[in-house]
Amino acid sequence: MNQSSALKGNVVVGQSGGPTVVINQSLVGVVEALRGQPNIGKVLGCLHGVRGIVDHQYIQMQDIPQDRLDRIAQTPSSALGSSRDKPDEEYCQRIFESFAKEDVRYFFYIGGNDSSDTCRIVNELARKQNYELRCFHVPKTIDNDLMHNDHTPGYGSAARFVACAFMGDNLDNRALPGVKINVIMGRHAGFLTAAAMLARQNPEDGPHLIYVPEVAFKSDKFLADVDRNMKKHGRCLIAVSEGIADDKHEPIASRLAIEQGHHVEKDSHGNVQLSGSGALGDFLAIHIKNNLGKKLRVRADTFGYLQRSFAGCVSATDAHEARKAGRKAADLALGGDLDGSIAIQRVNNDPYRVEYQRIELSDVAGKTRTLDRRYIVDDNNIADSFAEYLNPIVGKLPVIEFLRSATH
Amino acid sequence: MNQSSALKGNVVVGQSGGPTVVINQSLVGVVEALRGQPNIGKVLGCLHGVRGIVDHQYIQMQDIPQDRLDRIAQTPSSALGSSRDKPDEEYCQRIFESFAKEDVRYFFYIGGNDSSDTCRIVNELARKQNYELRCFHVPKTIDNDLMHNDHTPGYGSAARFVACAFMGDNLDNRALPGVKINVIMGRHAGFLTAAAMLARQNPEDGPHLIYVPEVAFKSDKFLADVDRNMKKHGRCLIAVSEGIADDKHEPIASRLAIEQGHHVEKDSHGNVQLSGSGALGDFLAIHIKNNLGKKLRVRADTFGYLQRSFAGCVSATDAHEARKAGRKAADLALGGDLDGSIAIQRVNNDPYRVEYQRIELSDVAGKTRTLDRRYIVDDNNIADSFAEYLNPIVGKLPVIEFLRSATH
Repeated sequence: MNQSSALKGNVVVGQSGGPTVVINQSLVGVVEALRGQPNIGKVLGCLHGVRGIVDHQYIQMQDIPQDRLDRIAQTPSSALGSSRDKPDEEYCQRIFESFAKEDVRYFFYIGGNDSSDTCRIVNELARKQNYELRCFHVPKTIDNDLMHNDHTPGYGSAARFVACAFMGDNLDNRALPGVKINVIMGRHAGFLTAAAMLARQNPEDGPHLIYVPEVAFKSDKFLADVDRNMKKHGRCLIAVSEGIADDKHEPIASRLAIEQGHHVEKDSHGNVQLSGSGALGDFLAIHIKNNLGKKLRVRADTFGYLQRSFAGCVSATDAHEARKAGRKAADLALGGDLDGSIAIQRVNNDPYRVEYQRIELSDVAGKTRTLDRRYIVDDNNIADSFAEYLNPIVGKLPVIEFLRSATH
Repeated sequence: MNQSSALKGNVVVGQSGGPTVVINQSLVGVVEALRGQPNIGKVLGCLHGVRGIVDHQYIQMQDIPQDRLDRIAQTPSSALGSSRDKPDEEYCQRIFESFAKEDVRYFFYIGGNDSSDTCRIVNELARKQNYELRCFHVPKTIDNDLMHNDHTPGYGSAARFVACAFMGDNLDNRALPGVKINVIMGRHAGFLTAAAMLARQNPEDGPHLIYVPEVAFKSDKFLADVDRNMKKHGRCLIAVSEGIADDKHEPIASRLAIEQGHHVEKDSHGNVQLSGSGALGDFLAIHIKNNLGKKLRVRADTFGYLQRSFAGCVSATDAHEARKAGRKAADLALGGDLDGSIAIQRVNNDPYRVEYQRIELSDVAGKTRTLDRRYIVDDNNIADSFAEYLNPIVGKLPVIEFLRSATH
């Protein structure tokens, strides 16, 4: 379609949900693809997601110099601010009032599956109200849990953080042996936790055990797993998702929180807030000590928000793809497509090549993709083949060299 | 002194205490300075510190190719393994038996102040027993708490990790406002926690509050500090040392642990194990919610072992200096000096230049340097002037660019 015939009006772009280190790449991708195009007026960034729309909090972005845009793109976290608001009908009505006032005809929302659902609701209300609007969701989530995506922008860099953390922590655990538990983000999908497997470069390397939320967690089996690895390696490095749950789908972390009398906080989507609390790691550590020996050296870390915002740990492929996903959404909207979400599809693994496809908002909204069972080994590990999936999107890792035990 | 007249014999080099990402630079520095020198035979790495000496667990290092040594040097954590054993008289007797059996005349121990104390004890016993031994301590600690050192190898890289973490987390907290608490390693010295201040690149940036163990922590004052920053910025990013204590020198973390009925573990040096537990962060978060409002968004992360072992976050200056410190110790021992510790002294700040000086083992053994009071602002912050001290040893940080609120 001839882009000069594009719908005339202004643009709103927003960011939603948990930040990533490449979410500003997608923002800049949208802005640089749209500004200066025929019929496109102002490119407005809404502050703190949909909240900024209803509050008329906008920043004009069409005149920002390219070198400044490039620096914004490489800055971690959401430059416009984020939101966890989930709009209802009344909220959406206020969104339209704001759009109408600003003559907004293009809306881009960068976020995860909650955000694509927001996009879908806004879009459906636009149709009902005969308000002509181009409405695109640009994917973003370190959880990698969006349907119909090979992987999502944000995941590669977070996986890189987890891999680098485990590479170092495996060597730390080798230097001062014992049991070490690391709790990784992921309520329902184990993709990020599974990335810990990239730290294994030699047969004796950890993580020796990896527990993802896709498999029911059995406390007794866990003890046997740890005991077996302690006997085999003299140490045991463990990766667990924050969202591991028992066979009744009760999260181990919230069971602990409730057992210990803590208040369990939920966000406006009904998700229990598990990140940023050492509760799960400490619970598992105490569980091990109580059963395998009080004198056992057991430590636990919870990686927390560093996984999604650490400055300077970025996958170049992830940054590139996040930018392209934003541009693709803008190009489709300019080209006449009404709405949709962008999905990254892997066309070839070696050499690595991807395509950016338009999918329906309803295909991705409010749904959760989980880790393919073929990557899950028994109930406590991740297959080596997962590295083939991960390597191209995580990038080359730091070089590690061991000193091995030897006679002299 | 003519190095060809150096004492004839073999070398033992070991690593002790908590790992760092540059401790292998010092190991390689010792090895490459000694191997091939006249009168120097085998260069033996002892596995897991002094434990490897008494157990005769050695690796020969004199024939490792230089390219492999270079890769070992850039690998995080202690390649030889580490130990927290503190030798007593009987233990030292077994060290001598091992040394005598291997004809060891040079001993290099890379570690913190506990390690230099081990070095001192071994050295004094050597003198008493008329066993001719060159005995050198090579400094290593992310805590930066060794006396007579401008800074210690390991600190610059750990400070870089903390700065990068806070740069990202400041933007994360800006995107999704609330109170965020980050707990940083440091039992008695606040150097590493103070490094969080490098994340402040604009007036509104966090950390807005920084609490170090050098100042008594007042729980009520803390609440007023948080409340004031929430009112001023709509958010509050906080850095706290794990070792913060009340005015009776009781650690806030262990008070919590005991209050909650947890077992408090101590290492063989009598240090309470505080790292790797989310207890302090969670305690402070609950303290805030109980007093400033249950609905307030409050999160806490404990950086844990990532601070000392994360692969790929290294200060180039720190890596270079750690290597040079190892070489310097070897050169002094070859040159005829009997014993000592290496101290890095800053000769000039701009351009940055340091010297490596020999100091007495007794000057550094078992003592703790704390943060200069001129860098501590009131009881809750770090002065901007601390950046002048930090910048050369942390190195250039990732580029950050903000979008500011603006009219449209």
